[in-house]
Amino acid sequence: MAKRKPPPGGLPGTGLLTLRRVAIDTYRENVAYLHRQCEVYRAEGFQALAKVEVTSENGPRILAVLNVVDDEALVAPGELGLSEEALGTLGLDPGAQVRICHAEPPASMDAVRRKIDGERLNADEFLAIARDIAERRYAKMEIAAFLVASGQTGLDRDEIMNLTRAMVAQGERLQWHGDLVADKHCIGGIPGNRTSMLVVPIVAAHGMLIPKTSSRAITSPAGTADTMEVLSCVELPPDRLREIVRQEYGALIWGGTANLAPVDDILISVERPLGIDYPGQMVASILSKKIAAGSTHLVIDIPVGASAKVRHMREAMALRKLFEFVADRLGLFVQVVITDGRQPVGRGIGPVLEARDVMQVLQNDPTAPSDLRQKALRLAGRVIEFDPDVRGGDGFDIARDILDSGRALTKMQDIIEAQGRQEQRFEPGSLVQEVPADRAGVVVAIDNYQMARIARMAGAPMDKGAGVDLLKKLGDQVEKGELLYRIHASFPADFRFASALVESDTGYRVGTADQIPAVFAEF
Amino acid sequence: MAKRKPPPGGLPGTGLLTLRRVAIDTYRENVAYLHRQCEVYRAEGFQALAKVEVTSENGPRILAVLNVVDDEALVAPGELGLSEEALGTLGLDPGAQVRICHAEPPASMDAVRRKIDGERLNADEFLAIARDIAERRYAKMEIAAFLVASGQTGLDRDEIMNLTRAMVAQGERLQWHGDLVADKHCIGGIPGNRTSMLVVPIVAAHGMLIPKTSSRAITSPAGTADTMEVLSCVELPPDRLREIVRQEYGALIWGGTANLAPVDDILISVERPLGIDYPGQMVASILSKKIAAGSTHLVIDIPVGASAKVRHMREAMALRKLFEFVADRLGLFVQVVITDGRQPVGRGIGPVLEARDVMQVLQNDPTAPSDLRQKALRLAGRVIEFDPDVRGGDGFDIARDILDSGRALTKMQDIIEAQGRQEQRFEPGSLVQEVPADRAGVVVAIDNYQMARIARMAGAPMDKGAGVDLLKKLGDQVEKGELLYRIHASFPADFRFASALVESDTGYRVGTADQIPAVFAEF
Repeated sequence: MAKRKPPPGGLPGTGLLTLRRVAIDTYRENVAYLHRQCEVYRAEGFQALAKVEVTSENGPRILAVLNVVDDEALVAPGELGLSEEALGTLGLDPGAQVRICHAEPPASMDAVRRKIDGERLNADEFLAIARDIAERRYAKMEIAAFLVASGQTGLDRDEIMNLTRAMVAQGERLQWHGDLVADKHCIGGIPGNRTSMLVVPIVAAHGMLIPKTSSRAITSPAGTADTMEVLSCVELPPDRLREIVRQEYGALIWGGTANLAPVDDILISVERPLGIDYPGQMVASILSKKIAAGSTHLVIDIPVGASAKVRHMREAMALRKLFEFVADRLGLFVQVVITDGRQPVGRGIGPVLEARDVMQVLQNDPTAPSDLRQKALRLAGRVIEFDPDVRGGDGFDIARDILDSGRALTKMQDIIEAQGRQEQRFEPGSLVQEVPADRAGVVVAIDNYQMARIARMAGAPMDKGAGVDLLKKLGDQVEKGELLYRIHASFPADFRFASALVESDTGYRVGTADQIPAVFAEF
Repeated sequence: MAKRKPPPGGLPGTGLLTLRRVAIDTYRENVAYLHRQCEVYRAEGFQALAKVEVTSENGPRILAVLNVVDDEALVAPGELGLSEEALGTLGLDPGAQVRICHAEPPASMDAVRRKIDGERLNADEFLAIARDIAERRYAKMEIAAFLVASGQTGLDRDEIMNLTRAMVAQGERLQWHGDLVADKHCIGGIPGNRTSMLVVPIVAAHGMLIPKTSSRAITSPAGTADTMEVLSCVELPPDRLREIVRQEYGALIWGGTANLAPVDDILISVERPLGIDYPGQMVASILSKKIAAGSTHLVIDIPVGASAKVRHMREAMALRKLFEFVADRLGLFVQVVITDGRQPVGRGIGPVLEARDVMQVLQNDPTAPSDLRQKALRLAGRVIEFDPDVRGGDGFDIARDILDSGRALTKMQDIIEAQGRQEQRFEPGSLVQEVPADRAGVVVAIDNYQMARIARMAGAPMDKGAGVDLLKKLGDQVEKGELLYRIHASFPADFRFASALVESDTGYRVGTADQIPAVFAEF
């Protein structure tokens, strides 16, 4: 079929329209609202086109998806409504005069169409795509087209490298005072896996820079930022963050304010609802964020398990090579660690319960979850071995000494004080459902996906006290009726949600010891 | 990467919300508006999810994309705003009580994800996808994912057949009083190609049923419905249409009211803005609409040319086989005709100018454009040969006799009277720009795409008198400064648009006779 390259930009607009603010949050997509009886609208036949270009005299121009309005109270004929975000991008105030015209798809959509046809894109094309996405020129359906076209089989490793580089080029890039800036990152999917909150104080106590910027949960029951927020403030201005890192060597903050690789956030806002998650995009997403955050040395945790994101060792190995290939070429030193992803880590799932686990480990509480402690020590050890003065293999022992001596706890308290101690006191949700075993035997499977979903339905992460507290883990003996876990919720509706979900599937399977799947992990 | 099949439907909702009408036209996508301070919203953390499920007591349920509102004048806390279309789908009035909950992606998205991974889908899976799309359970980004995944290399011919069948199964299906219901359809892309308005009266005058339902223009400067509307009403209730067809054998109406293969319209609303147009989807789109319209015999016109949708003969042949394969298996008798798509057909581009061409041909006006006449006669001849009583090869002569004798004109007048003569009198736009040749020579190329774009910018099809009137065609001798075509517009802004576009590219190329491309067409 014939494809035509649309001319860059649209054509000059027709009559003037008065800008009006429409208080609708369209989440990372510009939307313009125009009254159906508007002269400009009627003359142009805009209804057929999905997008318009909004231009002002000598000013910037934005693309927006057009919604037609039939209510003058919202937008009158002669007015153009824009959402807060679109107004911000345009940089104009309500009342300003603008024109609109037929918008051609962004020029880089031509490359996306060639990608759909199976062609290989070059560095400049990925740069153009990333720029158009960063400038909000893509509608969500166009982003979906790009993501699907560059899905599982669609990007080779050079293309992934070029995509990563293009994503880094669009946002800010943090600078730190040291040459070695360490970080750790997990590809996700394992509830309760809050090792960052242990690795950061241990590594910082060793004297290495580890300014960790994290996300809030998008589809999981808690992100590191959500959990850290139980203890301290996590939204800090860049200058304050720099001071803290200079003083403490470590920090645990939300990265959302820093405009790091903003293209990544936009892509994620389409990937998650679509439920697509491909290795190439994962690698580009993680590495672009880390490079933008100023990291030079990075440990990546890939959990493998039947209900983890990566289910087979061979898949994990392929993903590892991909991380190494791209990171090496972008000057980021990466160590990939493949870990046990058969079940949740620690006991708590949800911000308050996970923060409790973390503090128990830091306090050397004998009841602290040992799997969380072991995993954090191993990861921290690998990070510490980035230190040229540390002998290969000594990292774990150094990390353990820092933890056992209480220096990690002291460092965590210092970081909390520096970021600003959380004033609100959060407790586990007071509505509790206890979920018992329906038969005697050994716990042979805990479904990561289902446990995350139960915690989420119970209200996590918005309700910090909501979540799931696991009393039994893989290999534990249980009697019939013995408790497997507790659900905590704060609101009756959430509590009913979570109960209804447990009714259909507890997420646990009890059987015989020989049914426990083997560990895939290597360290 | 691990993929999980989401459970069917969402979970039961939480607190009650009062329905409110929001007069925003979101064009074939359900959107729900919820105030940011709404208790239900705050407790649920909906911001992270793109979609919600709206349910009523014992009533239907719909999926909708969630937009968050910060203005109580639009939607207050405790209210749920829905667009007109979403309200209609839900079947409730404003004021009704509803609940909302986290919506899982439609169950059939699982099949879409497998398609993205390169798997082959079966008939049941296409049926489930079509059903979910028809029920507005897909967001536009999900439709984009489906379209891209099933793009150029993604659907084999059995899958195209199953997709077509699934699309037919979703809407209404028209019934006619005869056993042989003829139709003709062009795959599009050639401006001025208004043969349907000649084929229908010729074939109807021969006594064959040809109740033609057409679309309005989506990205072209005129659809058959837009052009017929210059002469008569084209929006008729089904009962009236049936009466007309019983009496006149033919009709030329807009198919949009009949709910024929509604999935096709929804897919098109995403395909067009994305600029993707794949053979498989084209075949499924055209054949599903025709089968739903009750056609039993169909002539398909595939124009081939450098600026047509199909650029090479081998591509046209592959497309022909695809049409034949699917149509045969769905019981539709198809004849594919490959035609000359090197330049626009006739002289006029735009509803009024194209209607003028059509009437000149019907009136046997000696100045009528002969290419339009010839093409219409050939196509009508092929349709007439569906008549078992017509000897193969005689169709063209029968069609010519009907046209030359004035019986086609009489039939057209009868159809116009039956549908209701247009009361408004449309004239070509009074703002005229004449576009001259910049050198002497022979016209060697006329760019279909550029001519359509100029006509569209001049205001077609919304402004019926707007468009382009071609004075020279391929092979014509021109002197320097001699007129190539006239642009007609009614509004100054449109006129400036079109002039600006001509400035950059007139769409014509003047050269020497040997540069005229060869005709690919076969009849």
